[in-house]
Amino acid sequence: MSRPRVVIVGGGFGGLSAARSLRSAPAEVLLIDRCNHHLFQPLLYQVATSVLTPAQIASPIRNILRKQKNTLVLLGEVTAMDTGARSVFASNVDREHVSIRYDYLVLATGAHHSYTGHESFEQFAPGLKTLADAVQIRNRILQAFERAEAQENPADDPGLLTFVLVGAGPTGVEMAGAIAVLIRQTLRAEYRRVDPALARVVLVEGGGRVLPSFSEPLSAAATRRLESLGVEIQPGHVDRLDEKGAWIGDEHVPSKTVIWAAGVNAGLVGKWLGTATDRSGRVRIDGLLRVPDHPEIFVIGDAAALDQDGHTLPGVAQVALQQGRYAGRSIARAIAGQPTLPPFRYFDKGSMAVVGKGFAVLEAGKVRISGILAWFAWAAIHIHFLAQSGLRIAVFLQWMWTYFTGQRGSRLIVNHRSTK
Amino acid sequence: MSRPRVVIVGGGFGGLSAARSLRSAPAEVLLIDRCNHHLFQPLLYQVATSVLTPAQIASPIRNILRKQKNTLVLLGEVTAMDTGARSVFASNVDREHVSIRYDYLVLATGAHHSYTGHESFEQFAPGLKTLADAVQIRNRILQAFERAEAQENPADDPGLLTFVLVGAGPTGVEMAGAIAVLIRQTLRAEYRRVDPALARVVLVEGGGRVLPSFSEPLSAAATRRLESLGVEIQPGHVDRLDEKGAWIGDEHVPSKTVIWAAGVNAGLVGKWLGTATDRSGRVRIDGLLRVPDHPEIFVIGDAAALDQDGHTLPGVAQVALQQGRYAGRSIARAIAGQPTLPPFRYFDKGSMAVVGKGFAVLEAGKVRISGILAWFAWAAIHIHFLAQSGLRIAVFLQWMWTYFTGQRGSRLIVNHRSTK
Repeated sequence: MSRPRVVIVGGGFGGLSAARSLRSAPAEVLLIDRCNHHLFQPLLYQVATSVLTPAQIASPIRNILRKQKNTLVLLGEVTAMDTGARSVFASNVDREHVSIRYDYLVLATGAHHSYTGHESFEQFAPGLKTLADAVQIRNRILQAFERAEAQENPADDPGLLTFVLVGAGPTGVEMAGAIAVLIRQTLRAEYRRVDPALARVVLVEGGGRVLPSFSEPLSAAATRRLESLGVEIQPGHVDRLDEKGAWIGDEHVPSKTVIWAAGVNAGLVGKWLGTATDRSGRVRIDGLLRVPDHPEIFVIGDAAALDQDGHTLPGVAQVALQQGRYAGRSIARAIAGQPTLPPFRYFDKGSMAVVGKGFAVLEAGKVRISGILAWFAWAAIHIHFLAQSGLRIAVFLQWMWTYFTGQRGSRLIVNHRSTK
Repeated sequence: MSRPRVVIVGGGFGGLSAARSLRSAPAEVLLIDRCNHHLFQPLLYQVATSVLTPAQIASPIRNILRKQKNTLVLLGEVTAMDTGARSVFASNVDREHVSIRYDYLVLATGAHHSYTGHESFEQFAPGLKTLADAVQIRNRILQAFERAEAQENPADDPGLLTFVLVGAGPTGVEMAGAIAVLIRQTLRAEYRRVDPALARVVLVEGGGRVLPSFSEPLSAAATRRLESLGVEIQPGHVDRLDEKGAWIGDEHVPSKTVIWAAGVNAGLVGKWLGTATDRSGRVRIDGLLRVPDHPEIFVIGDAAALDQDGHTLPGVAQVALQQGRYAGRSIARAIAGQPTLPPFRYFDKGSMAVVGKGFAVLEAGKVRISGILAWFAWAAIHIHFLAQSGLRIAVFLQWMWTYFTGQRGSRLIVNHRSTK
């Protein structure tokens, strides 16, 4: 009899950790992702702001899993599934359709940024979820600098060097701080005509305070830090948006560079399964992380909605990692005929956000710290978790290099006219 | 009276060295390039074969010139010029047309790959001149591996893992060796279904022998080394090419991945100037590197054709560097009212090519060596010349890392479906 086949869709934190938990299982594991690389998403904003290079936060999935001989990695994009026939349908590298049968299925498809009700915003305000997004945002920021330098008098056009971040969660706050530092370091040293004082960074905050998932004292510390970096915090929502700027309530902020950091959506996974989702498209799963009526299908990470102690678990790497491990172990036990695990419980190790250079906020249980110490903790933990040891060394050296010299890893505008 | 304006078109080896030679001149120097980065082209094949990352061989031009206060860097693509009015016309970052006046002009626009008479080949066989080209070729090679892994039986389609390099000069030879090493290291370790023995690397050689610019003994050493890596050297020319493969004379080589490394062209620079060019579009210049009848216009590097001792100088970095320095110094002297320099003379420091891993050929005057020693010389010299000290350290570490572990810097397929 052939070994049972476990199909994992998605090579993010959840999918990878599920695959790893199955490394000793007598199963045929097949991981499918539409990218060939695992992405260390918490550092994506550093690529968008030219601190790190794409290769420093991404590594080929098959390289990470090269020693796991029971696992096959395939490049392809899942487009539909038939839960009755236990098959997923995918479009492969040549966009041909293939069908893949499974005995167990782990859906770890993540989430992308969402413009709920404002889909037309996308063309003016890219979001930050993939490596391609980060490179696009990096291009936009650097092109704004280039555009200003090309003007005889950059002061004539106030939107030229105004950067608007929509959303004051961790992504918006980290981006705002990093752009402020980028402006301060780079414009001053390398541009001749542009006055850095003309540049504005506006953080649009619609949730009452910045970093609403943190406690109030840390939120206040982050606010003070942002203000000291020159970031303007603007309460309100973006109602209209075009190539000239954003309307925040009645106020018009002229800006050629708006970045979307508000809201995510889990996409089509609920539709594929024909099952209930929450407002963000996340699939409602049971305490064992399974889809109702389908004990062979697990949904984990950002694609899943699971309540614990009255709150839905947040879309963070730790949740995905722990759920992936749980799903992998559950499947291994089912294959071995062992009893099911007790229901999943998330263990919150705390959360962190970086604000500018050498400053972070950190909250873990009753521990709340902010400042350089939290930044060192942040750096140590992130280096520790980077997937591949080669990347680990490179990122550490890059951070130290950037920290002491202000020189950055990657300020390339790629594909700008060079692809004709 | 305002200072004379020197416009330099192109931020490659020639343009940068011209700009640097003008650092103390009482001039307003304006360097314009369509990319924001200087590219270390001799290592481009290492990006195409996933050894180095784009950021390791490219750095922003304005970063390199940040301390040179008399120099302004602009992003833009020159589209035409009016030599009577002493103006160049460029398209800026927003594709608006701008006109830039000059007193002295240095054209260092380089060359791109050329399909002389076979323009339809381009869609099937990309060439390697820009960072975007290298990323595209990297994507194609890695996608070929992915495509093979997705087949139930990869042996069914012989073109799937056949890589054809057209042209056996340094670029073709270096690419062929690097792909052979990539196949050997990566396919074996990380792919489950693909048998590396199925992969073929075919080097099409139309000039009598590989590396025709080197002496015969080194050419023979390179041939032996390529053959020991499993590269098939096929004499002849590519007459036809489509998505299924290449016809070399009467023989059809099925291949989904053909890379063009034969022939370059200097583009439109001769047309802009209305002056004589050679067959490759290179502008014929006088011994002082100037365009006939235009003592204020210099053409240097790959865009120029200059004979010395009965041979046209080759399109290599050393020629561009030395000519850039000469042009910059000539202009500085003209501005200072000093007598003109004696005619330019190229000092040949020798040439090198890498074949696979830890093997190079090196020829300098009567010195001819091949093997690991030549490779160490190659590595030392290339690290020395890398433009920016930050890059220098990173490339060195990356090479050592790859050399000892076989782990590569960057095997990312970027933009594959992730940009929707």
